[in-house]
Amino acid sequence: MKNKIKVGILGATGSVGQKFIELLENHPYFELNEVCASEQSAGKKYSEKVKWIQSTPLNKIAGSLTIKKCTPDLESQVVFSALDSSIAGEIESEFATKGYHVISNSKNHRWDEDVPLLIPEVNYEHLELLKSQKYEGSIVTNPNCSTIGLVLSLKPLEKFEIESVNVVTMQAISGAGFPGVPSMSILDNVIPFISGEEEKLETEPLKILGKIDNGMVVNSKMNISAQCNRVHVLDGHLEVVQVKFKNKPSKHELIESWKSFRSLPQQLNLPFAPEIPTRYFEEDDLPQPKLQRSIDKGMAVSIGRLRDCSLFDYKFVIISHNTIRGAAGGSILCAELMHEKGLI
Amino acid sequence: MKNKIKVGILGATGSVGQKFIELLENHPYFELNEVCASEQSAGKKYSEKVKWIQSTPLNKIAGSLTIKKCTPDLESQVVFSALDSSIAGEIESEFATKGYHVISNSKNHRWDEDVPLLIPEVNYEHLELLKSQKYEGSIVTNPNCSTIGLVLSLKPLEKFEIESVNVVTMQAISGAGFPGVPSMSILDNVIPFISGEEEKLETEPLKILGKIDNGMVVNSKMNISAQCNRVHVLDGHLEVVQVKFKNKPSKHELIESWKSFRSLPQQLNLPFAPEIPTRYFEEDDLPQPKLQRSIDKGMAVSIGRLRDCSLFDYKFVIISHNTIRGAAGGSILCAELMHEKGLI
Amino acid sequence: MKNKIKVGILGATGSVGQKFIELLENHPYFELNEVCASEQSAGKKYSEKVKWIQSTPLNKIAGSLTIKKCTPDLESQVVFSALDSSIAGEIESEFATKGYHVISNSKNHRWDEDVPLLIPEVNYEHLELLKSQKYEGSIVTNPNCSTIGLVLSLKPLEKFEIESVNVVTMQAISGAGFPGVPSMSILDNVIPFISGEEEKLETEPLKILGKIDNGMVVNSKMNISAQCNRVHVLDGHLEVVQVKFKNKPSKHELIESWKSFRSLPQQLNLPFAPEIPTRYFEEDDLPQPKLQRSIDKGMAVSIGRLRDCSLFDYKFVIISHNTIRGAAGGSILCAELMHEKGLI
Amino acid sequence: MKNKIKVGILGATGSVGQKFIELLENHPYFELNEVCASEQSAGKKYSEKVKWIQSTPLNKIAGSLTIKKCTPDLESQVVFSALDSSIAGEIESEFATKGYHVISNSKNHRWDEDVPLLIPEVNYEHLELLKSQKYEGSIVTNPNCSTIGLVLSLKPLEKFEIESVNVVTMQAISGAGFPGVPSMSILDNVIPFISGEEEKLETEPLKILGKIDNGMVVNSKMNISAQCNRVHVLDGHLEVVQVKFKNKPSKHELIESWKSFRSLPQQLNLPFAPEIPTRYFEEDDLPQPKLQRSIDKGMAVSIGRLRDCSLFDYKFVIISHNTIRGAAGGSILCAELMHEKGLI
Repeated sequence: MKNKIKVGILGATGSVGQKFIELLENHPYFELNEVCASEQSAGKKYSEKVKWIQSTPLNKIAGSLTIKKCTPDLESQVVFSALDSSIAGEIESEFATKGYHVISNSKNHRWDEDVPLLIPEVNYEHLELLKSQKYEGSIVTNPNCSTIGLVLSLKPLEKFEIESVNVVTMQAISGAGFPGVPSMSILDNVIPFISGEEEKLETEPLKILGKIDNGMVVNSKMNISAQCNRVHVLDGHLEVVQVKFKNKPSKHELIESWKSFRSLPQQLNLPFAPEIPTRYFEEDDLPQPKLQRSIDKGMAVSIGRLRDCSLFDYKFVIISHNTIRGAAGGSILCAELMHEKGLI
Repeated sequence: MKNKIKVGILGATGSVGQKFIELLENHPYFELNEVCASEQSAGKKYSEKVKWIQSTPLNKIAGSLTIKKCTPDLESQVVFSALDSSIAGEIESEFATKGYHVISNSKNHRWDEDVPLLIPEVNYEHLELLKSQKYEGSIVTNPNCSTIGLVLSLKPLEKFEIESVNVVTMQAISGAGFPGVPSMSILDNVIPFISGEEEKLETEPLKILGKIDNGMVVNSKMNISAQCNRVHVLDGHLEVVQVKFKNKPSKHELIESWKSFRSLPQQLNLPFAPEIPTRYFEEDDLPQPKLQRSIDKGMAVSIGRLRDCSLFDYKFVIISHNTIRGAAGGSILCAELMHEKGLI
Repeated sequence: MKNKIKVGILGATGSVGQKFIELLENHPYFELNEVCASEQSAGKKYSEKVKWIQSTPLNKIAGSLTIKKCTPDLESQVVFSALDSSIAGEIESEFATKGYHVISNSKNHRWDEDVPLLIPEVNYEHLELLKSQKYEGSIVTNPNCSTIGLVLSLKPLEKFEIESVNVVTMQAISGAGFPGVPSMSILDNVIPFISGEEEKLETEPLKILGKIDNGMVVNSKMNISAQCNRVHVLDGHLEVVQVKFKNKPSKHELIESWKSFRSLPQQLNLPFAPEIPTRYFEEDDLPQPKLQRSIDKGMAVSIGRLRDCSLFDYKFVIISHNTIRGAAGGSILCAELMHEKGLI
Repeated sequence: MKNKIKVGILGATGSVGQKFIELLENHPYFELNEVCASEQSAGKKYSEKVKWIQSTPLNKIAGSLTIKKCTPDLESQVVFSALDSSIAGEIESEFATKGYHVISNSKNHRWDEDVPLLIPEVNYEHLELLKSQKYEGSIVTNPNCSTIGLVLSLKPLEKFEIESVNVVTMQAISGAGFPGVPSMSILDNVIPFISGEEEKLETEPLKILGKIDNGMVVNSKMNISAQCNRVHVLDGHLEVVQVKFKNKPSKHELIESWKSFRSLPQQLNLPFAPEIPTRYFEEDDLPQPKLQRSIDKGMAVSIGRLRDCSLFDYKFVIISHNTIRGAAGGSILCAELMHEKGLI
């Protein structure tokens, strides 16, 4: 592609910001053009201010960029936001108002009526909400990292009419950002609490799985209960899921639904689209975060251990990569879809 | 006590066997007299054959004992069995037949109709089953490590009539024995599978919470679904629990039930009885394995995070020490109760 | 003891401050009377402001204390300082000036000519320096956590005239305090750098092993090179040590020197004195942090793997508990010694 | 390349064997043709017998191969040996005798006078030894995983005449194979002992850095002392190194020597050759196993923290990937070099 779309990153020095930089290297559509961070970092070279914690070395071009402030006077028209939620809401609105297309990982705008809470394979039709946005530009949001894996695993099962979902998560430490969880707190331990997480996981799927009616999302009515735990894993959220259906399928039907699920990103052959979004593993002890999190560029959800459940219909286990599929990679896929749809 | 009861340990070199030795040091009722292990270890000094992995040093007297074979010709009349289930069934029967009192951690005899599956605070009245045993001696079994914490947390709630229980465990690596889980398998990982564990956790509580009728246990009718996971924690099983009651209590009633629960071991002031068997923590992020596992000599169950649940009535979190309360310490408490009852 | 000495803790909410509270429970000489922390915590109940991270529960009396500011208007005449070095220097001087006896874990006063850098078993005679202090009260300092283990292991070898010492440490995360090392930084990793640590480890032993001459310490002339690394261990610093002597002893002489080493704290039977300060283990793979750190109340140094060394004379491995022997416990032992000597 | 060279793997189901399969996928010179393992696995499909523990999924073609016995009747003429040293010696000799070219990771033949102990960048000229081998085929060995990183870091410094080397390692658990180190042994711990490792690390560099004289290797005379420790890291050995030179260079000269070092594999542009074999990092806290182990396909050695040393001349830190550079990747690079030299 001759002319790549120039993109900027808001909150570029944090762990999600770093992941954006890592993943955008050599992207076929997008070219990292600007990195933005706090006022005290602005004006410095990115490589000097960042505490780089990725296992691939910092790309030289990115490292040589001069950090800008998070104000809407960038050259790039598309910005990925990895801002902390304490400041993201306002800054993102400012950018959208000034004509920038904002794809955000922060929770602030997720529940705005005119903002899609987007998982490209699941609810690409929600991009229709953009029509009602009053912004010069636009805002699209990425769901919470634990939501994305769950909803991707549920989407292929929608035809069996999901009544209720019970989910218990074992979430990776990278989900808490950097410095995040102190090592003294999590070595030899599990922390059965992540502030605000259960609320997100119980509500975000309702919007994402909602149907567009008259230009608005009508939320799903399914009933979700979530319990969230932090475990000593670097990347990859594991979730044990129980589901009750209106039309209970056979195990075979469930597995085939996952195996055969493809959606618009796969049809459009988007660069970050996983070939097989929901992969089923037959092995007794899979999926595991360490073994499956990186499959299909870290963009697939791995599923296994489908069993009958005396309290629901079925129980199973999923894992997905929280900082790729669940954050930066998911946002990039949103942007790719918007690009193909002519929205950016 | 002038004349302590002499006890032996079957399977003394394994990790549970070691825990017995550690916990029996200076016990007021019992005196470690004999250690038994495989034929190839027999005849050697214990300290020479054991790969001691406890963090308190091996007691000198225990270390100097000569290992015997697991055959029923011991001086001790009480034996704690930490045998592997591949051989425990037969050996334990032989000992009981020859007049020994066997308190076992193995699964083999747990479902024998005349064998109590005993948690002293929960079903001490099941010791009545011993009357129907045909052994010269007796066999009493300790439940599975993940069962004990769960059932202890449920016992004080029985009055509200439990209909169903959903439990997801995050279990410590010490539960798999030594060498057990390879470090390459669990570092930076969760393994969502423990062979046979879900079955035990779904069924053992039914017997333990069953009522004695006509000298037999009539199992509880509650419905349990379990999902078991191995996490990177040394000791302490964490379980997230959801419960539905026939008579839904208030949160306050639940918490008070736990806080005020005392049972026969507390009344008898048994040495290994925890002062408060079910402790409730008000903090948002407790209980945690590392912080609460050792409370009350590792014999208490710690409970926290009681919340409403849209799919059941309530959800909460428990932790208990799997190798103390869930294995060696639990067995010693059984023996203490039997001693006070004149059964050994 | 009827009238225990009232003590206060400066910096009581941090991880070393917490360790002081944990270790002072039921101390025969000292009674925790006051806890001091930052201005924003002052006036609050200790249990409300502390993020308690110890595995034994917070003692109720300590928890109910009202936090005071770190100003020299306490009732207690003895204060243990766990202050951050950014503020410790001045505050400690103020307290000493006002007549308080300060036992400090901070580095600020360690190199003051009139301040003992004290390991009671090693250089108790340095308490003589107190005579030249101009304070109404006094200041005594505890060495750095990695220094204490090393110097304790060297002291019994002094008679063979140590020429040079090479040491490489693998230090526990608790040495960095709380929150300290981020979990994302240390999971599946080693960090080969601890700011300022190598300098301390190369110089502090010289003062500690120095001789009093004319009321002043004349530093040891031995040559030390140190390399410090952070490893994924909660508590317990492991150090691999190489030593060259003027009078090379036999291995047997070295081991006997360690085994037989006793000093003033042992003779005085001080409560926190380890029975055997330097323990030698014959096993191939000992000492290990997890297995030996808690020996003798966490106050002993464990030594093993003595081998010939082609570049020095010998090499061996030591471990010691960094937050007990290397911090709070070490300070308490200093205070005990001072008490017995009539210095507090 | 039209006709790739067919290769087999001896010991294909173990962790090094798996790494060979992972790394050989799409190799430009070599094509995995046969996998060999123990008799009880022979005849089964590879995917059915292997406990795959790599984080990239098992390649389908490899998974579908039928496991053969480790007997010299393979179609492939080149075999990589990942056999356990208890059986490797004899089997490798049999293969070489029958005309196979064996590149081995096992220690058995490393000290054979006519067998190169090969690190392609360091001693490619040792391939001359093959001329004196009496085998129909040949045997080339890969050094121990901790040796390779050390020797690579020393090679560029040879011109300053190294007199002595002191090294302390912190080695990854994957170095012990699978199942290898039990998780209960290493969680929250360091094990200061790896059987036989210090001997290898003190002697193998002498052969590798030796000079060919009259068709034989004359070992280097440098003096090496090693201490080896197992730490809780999945992959990547860290080594802290101290060196004394005959001609002490400046720090700048050392760093430039590392930065500019290139050797035959780089000149030949071998597929597995790292672009920059010895990389120097200026940051205070680098290199770290997690951050640098995968650089340059896991084939580079990362170096940092060069400092003056009062006991030697300099001290520094290195890390290298033990299962790639230190095992399977290193062997493949050997084979690539041999191929380019017309030796296979």
